[in-house]
Amino acid sequence: MTSGARGSRTVTPYDDVERELANLLRRARTMNRDIAVDVHPDLQPAAYALMSRVAELGSVRASDLSDYFGVDKGGVSRQVALLERLGLVARDPDPDDGRAQRLVLTPDGGSRLTAAREGRRRRLREQLERWADADVGALGALLGRFNREQDSVAGG
Amino acid sequence: MTSGARGSRTVTPYDDVERELANLLRRARTMNRDIAVDVHPDLQPAAYALMSRVAELGSVRASDLSDYFGVDKGGVSRQVALLERLGLVARDPDPDDGRAQRLVLTPDGGSRLTAAREGRRRRLREQLERWADADVGALGALLGRFNREQDSVAGG
Repeated sequence: MTSGARGSRTVTPYDDVERELANLLRRARTMNRDIAVDVHPDLQPAAYALMSRVAELGSVRASDLSDYFGVDKGGVSRQVALLERLGLVARDPDPDDGRAQRLVLTPDGGSRLTAAREGRRRRLREQLERWADADVGALGALLGRFNREQDSVAGG
Repeated sequence: MTSGARGSRTVTPYDDVERELANLLRRARTMNRDIAVDVHPDLQPAAYALMSRVAELGSVRASDLSDYFGVDKGGVSRQVALLERLGLVARDPDPDDGRAQRLVLTPDGGSRLTAAREGRRRRLREQLERWADADVGALGALLGRFNREQDSVAGG
């Protein structure tokens, strides 16, 4: 039921995993675009990614975002300006450096992000609820193993 | 062997899949950074993503990249300028519009991209070769089903 149009080509199980990982990562871009619009209709995907990082860290300097995303400071500045204009992110004084500022989510930004993520989570569950429990368990376990091994490679 | 430190918290199989998908997508950022450096030591991740899109389409207008990545034109221009400076991307006249140009990979850009991707593919295989064949097959099949269902949702 899962294979199909493959015919006589030699496709190894490695090829399958590789292709499906690539598909998933490509789709991640679309998903990010969709969730960005859920957060705010005028939010660009790149600015959403930046907002997610602010949420993840609680507060962060713009210069650290520049390093993290591999985007120059001008690019980060423009995205931060958009996030401020939309009322999603604000600047707080940096307790460690009076002249510096840290980016934080506004209360509205936080609640919009939570609501958009809840929506995504609900859609994911609706999809997986149609699967056999054993398949859901297997996907979680295999992805978990894959990720942990990638971590240990990255760390070593 | 795959579970562990979970204790008495109620973690459903959905939570596992959700968390591991999030881990995987987060890791995608790191992987993109690594492969960007493999392509060229001075290549930023954002510019690598743009270069990948050029490779995927064969040739593309800069304005289409701006739409696709949700980045403003200035941001795309700066990344394209970096890619040109590194000799990875060049501009060809657009056959449909004499005044417009399309971005293409240079031969050097193409061979560097291929080599970097081969390296990533080899590392993925080395990882999965340590798995039981049945687990590799299951991961490919389950991810494939997940992706196809996401496609059909996105299309409907």
